[in-house]
Amino acid sequence: MAEINVQFNPWQETFKKPFGAVAVNQTVTFNLKVTAENPKVFLVIRKENSFQEECLMKATEDNFYTIDFQLAKEIGLYFYYFKIEVHQPERDIVAYVGKNHQNLVPKLTGNLEEVWEFQLTSFEAEIDQSPEWYRQAIAYQIFPDRFNEVRDTLPNRADSLYYLNKTDAPYYIKDEKGEVVRWDFYGGNFAGIIAKLPYLKKMGVSLIYLNPIFEAGSNHRYDTGDYFKIDDFLGTNEDFKKFVEQLHQEGIRVILDGVFNHVGRNSRYFNGDGSYDSLGAYQSRQSPYYPWFNFGHFPEDYRSWWGFKNLPETNKQNPGFQDFIYGKDGVIDYWSKYGVDGWRIDVADEFPDFFLRGIRNRLNHHKDQILIGEVWEDASNKISYNQRRDYILGNSLHGVMNYPLKNAIVALVTDRQTPEGVAWELTSLRENYPRANFFNGLNHLSTHDTERIFSLLDQNIKALEQAVAFMFCVPGVPCIYYGDEAGLTGGKDPDNRKFYPWGRENEKVKNIYQNWSNRRKENAVLAEGEVYFGYYQDFMIVLRANQTDYALLILNTSSSEAMLVFEEIDFLRPLPEKLAQAISQTPPQKLSGKDCLYRDYRF
Amino acid sequence: MAEINVQFNPWQETFKKPFGAVAVNQTVTFNLKVTAENPKVFLVIRKENSFQEECLMKATEDNFYTIDFQLAKEIGLYFYYFKIEVHQPERDIVAYVGKNHQNLVPKLTGNLEEVWEFQLTSFEAEIDQSPEWYRQAIAYQIFPDRFNEVRDTLPNRADSLYYLNKTDAPYYIKDEKGEVVRWDFYGGNFAGIIAKLPYLKKMGVSLIYLNPIFEAGSNHRYDTGDYFKIDDFLGTNEDFKKFVEQLHQEGIRVILDGVFNHVGRNSRYFNGDGSYDSLGAYQSRQSPYYPWFNFGHFPEDYRSWWGFKNLPETNKQNPGFQDFIYGKDGVIDYWSKYGVDGWRIDVADEFPDFFLRGIRNRLNHHKDQILIGEVWEDASNKISYNQRRDYILGNSLHGVMNYPLKNAIVALVTDRQTPEGVAWELTSLRENYPRANFFNGLNHLSTHDTERIFSLLDQNIKALEQAVAFMFCVPGVPCIYYGDEAGLTGGKDPDNRKFYPWGRENEKVKNIYQNWSNRRKENAVLAEGEVYFGYYQDFMIVLRANQTDYALLILNTSSSEAMLVFEEIDFLRPLPEKLAQAISQTPPQKLSGKDCLYRDYRF
Repeated sequence: MAEINVQFNPWQETFKKPFGAVAVNQTVTFNLKVTAENPKVFLVIRKENSFQEECLMKATEDNFYTIDFQLAKEIGLYFYYFKIEVHQPERDIVAYVGKNHQNLVPKLTGNLEEVWEFQLTSFEAEIDQSPEWYRQAIAYQIFPDRFNEVRDTLPNRADSLYYLNKTDAPYYIKDEKGEVVRWDFYGGNFAGIIAKLPYLKKMGVSLIYLNPIFEAGSNHRYDTGDYFKIDDFLGTNEDFKKFVEQLHQEGIRVILDGVFNHVGRNSRYFNGDGSYDSLGAYQSRQSPYYPWFNFGHFPEDYRSWWGFKNLPETNKQNPGFQDFIYGKDGVIDYWSKYGVDGWRIDVADEFPDFFLRGIRNRLNHHKDQILIGEVWEDASNKISYNQRRDYILGNSLHGVMNYPLKNAIVALVTDRQTPEGVAWELTSLRENYPRANFFNGLNHLSTHDTERIFSLLDQNIKALEQAVAFMFCVPGVPCIYYGDEAGLTGGKDPDNRKFYPWGRENEKVKNIYQNWSNRRKENAVLAEGEVYFGYYQDFMIVLRANQTDYALLILNTSSSEAMLVFEEIDFLRPLPEKLAQAISQTPPQKLSGKDCLYRDYRF
Repeated sequence: MAEINVQFNPWQETFKKPFGAVAVNQTVTFNLKVTAENPKVFLVIRKENSFQEECLMKATEDNFYTIDFQLAKEIGLYFYYFKIEVHQPERDIVAYVGKNHQNLVPKLTGNLEEVWEFQLTSFEAEIDQSPEWYRQAIAYQIFPDRFNEVRDTLPNRADSLYYLNKTDAPYYIKDEKGEVVRWDFYGGNFAGIIAKLPYLKKMGVSLIYLNPIFEAGSNHRYDTGDYFKIDDFLGTNEDFKKFVEQLHQEGIRVILDGVFNHVGRNSRYFNGDGSYDSLGAYQSRQSPYYPWFNFGHFPEDYRSWWGFKNLPETNKQNPGFQDFIYGKDGVIDYWSKYGVDGWRIDVADEFPDFFLRGIRNRLNHHKDQILIGEVWEDASNKISYNQRRDYILGNSLHGVMNYPLKNAIVALVTDRQTPEGVAWELTSLRENYPRANFFNGLNHLSTHDTERIFSLLDQNIKALEQAVAFMFCVPGVPCIYYGDEAGLTGGKDPDNRKFYPWGRENEKVKNIYQNWSNRRKENAVLAEGEVYFGYYQDFMIVLRANQTDYALLILNTSSSEAMLVFEEIDFLRPLPEKLAQAISQTPPQKLSGKDCLYRDYRF
């Protein structure tokens, strides 16, 4: 198609304005540059689950074609491409302009089937700005059984074993069928966390994300037994109240793990073993909890999470269950009274959108609470159970656990992805997410569901520093998985859930976390500044900027010393002029192999 | 062989005198009755590992042929049969008289290969009479981790898990290769036993047999780590000293489990993981412990018990190891100072005879100690590693754990063996053992190595009472495996090692044990009286008698009511006249199906 040349880059306002996701009802201007003989240029755009529109674009100067497109009143995803028709006497030519994989040069093709559409996220205005405390937070994830223990007595608990030595590695005690027959506990509890508050404060922590804490049979407590009762291994409800008060006095917030997709088989609600005094769904069709579950052949055949019969799945369509979780005086309200500052919703994908919105609406009754979801992919376009999910399009989740970021960081520092590729991926994510939701991400390098970062990086301390630096320098709330900052190692579950190695911390690792945490606290631009991901040869650059300040994180991903020429950095999207100027005037910087360098400036 | 008839019954003094095993240097008289035409009759006898002798027997009256045979000065087994030659003009006949399986009519055969020899045990005089305290004892076997726990603190122990609920069933925590990766503990300890002394005393217990108590890695402690140190889960050495003192004050003796055949891989001696500060055999050929083990290719290839690499086998031929165990101030001496009353030798079969004698000789330096061996078969003629074992022939083991008795009892009360068969088996055992050693047997219905008796009997309470009655009414020391008396159930290891069910005892079962224990204590004849096993139809009879008293235990093994006619009981061997008369004059007794009846009398 030598007769046609096009230019389009949705990350430059020359071509698409404004950048990124756009609020409902707003107008978006598209500009396509087409070099061809008298072309007709169309924007072909469709809102998901609606009709496709072909909009003729108006020629302006310099071969640009333009159109102002007004978004609908409803949130959702738009997908678009361009169509170019060139009428010639002997033939008509039709060409399409779509996206190229990790490439800013758009793909021009005559074959509609090859067209990969651009995404445009349309969200519900700016209502997901999170509370100030969250935006400024440094978070710390605690798997409650494994952080610290201070106690006089042990609970008398069946099928449970208690480690006599905290340095033992956790172990699933399974029978021949692979079913867990005894749960192993280290005995971590609230009193243990309280005892370590000075440590956490020193580490800069201002938010604790607790894995489940309600009464349950297992050590992870994702098999909830009673939503209104703290597990007695951790303390009493009263202990928890005091715990939250003490955290708040120290300026530390706390969010809980909301596990509403399933309950324990031996819960108050299902009562598979009759251990609760309630009439459980498993026991009788007359149980008030019977409609909370989906039974086939009663009672043995019921829907359960991933087929784990120990985790009967809840029926989110049931108004009684909805009310129980997010109705007035439901579970959300109940723990609000204890002062909790929000929730992380376990397996958010498993819920219909309305259910998450129901939780958010209930949270909105309280002050300053935050709602984060467990989503492992780009949350803007995630499809689960054949449904596009709208959880970051406003008034649902404030943000999600940022697994794409973690994957990009690990790929970068282990040389499995180039700086250019990472810059492209993360800018793409930034584009797809409403700004507020992007900035609300809960960033991490490991969680209770992944291998520990230090192990992932083969305990390479330089790679670790690059990864930690990266996490602390990007938008979203950095979240330290307890023990990562002590150099704790661990492969897949349960090895990633060892007890915190008190007295055996890796001091080098601890210093890294301490330093970057300090830096984050001291520089507001790292929490709130806009982000630009750039690259130059083997250098990865993260640039943060607000009106008064900017900061640069530079990683040399190669193993050799190299020189960074600032004016050569490609940030993929244009920098504001003042910023561009400042950057280009920065003198070249030499970095040793695998080093990282942080600088911040005032304009 | 119509021309020849013979009569011989080694259990009747008419035919062999004295009954049973005979001390060295003594003379035994054999009488064989032969009805034939002018026969020549020979006793064919051989001492094991010596020559065979053919001794012409002298004709006496009534077709009897007799010979006095003097035993050699050395202990050992004799095997004998008889040969009969009848010379006739036209032909010579040769016939042999040997044993019949479970039949007192001897086998007459012309084929030497069909001859099953009679056994005659020759032992080293009467030096194995056990101390009075042992002969009168009622024993109680405690698996230390599982009886009772009283403690303030838990040890800080690697790879170990502690049950939070004592009602949990024990579980081997193994990896895919089947190797134990964590040991499960209930925390039973000396303080726990002390707290239950009133209970034990009420149960009539006067001897505690403790499974291993020395420092070790596992919960069973058969993998000794240090022979001079009490496992810290149980208490300190000092605690043990006090423990023994308290037991003695209450009139309770205590014997230890002597585990000398192997040590733990991670012991002070082998030190496979370097956890001890010693230079272990695994670590260096220069280790003082190196000669204690049998290495092939050093260090990974070493001989271990049944191939369990966690249990390196000791080299009993090594003088250093011998000295360590039974030399002056060795292990035996060391614990004698703590007041222990003897030992039960684990896997006694694995030791050369001299090693057990070495232990016994060392024990003989102390007062009133007892030496029991773990042997699962008839200990008089056991062959292990191609060697006939002499452990009950004097000055070695006082007695053995009486597994043949246990097997006979279980077979009897579960209808898998007839009363006649059981009477034959046990009389045979009685014949083969020196009297003292037979009376020194440690009798039991379950141990830590077998299924629990209540489970073996399908929790049939009547069968259990018959079994318990039987154990308490035969010679040897009855030994209750902790929890059996509470109706604790359990299959094979580790299910047979549950924690004692405090507060959940089966009262019916407890009453049975209590009653029979009381009976045993009250009637000296049950401890010391000679025993005669008899049967009549479906009745099993155990008769005990001394000069002044006799006692009868009668079991109706059928499910229907039946009448026992005392004069019809076949006791297999002749009763003393006074006793025979008393029995035959006992009026008939009706017993319901599966009932048992006990009576004692004064002559």
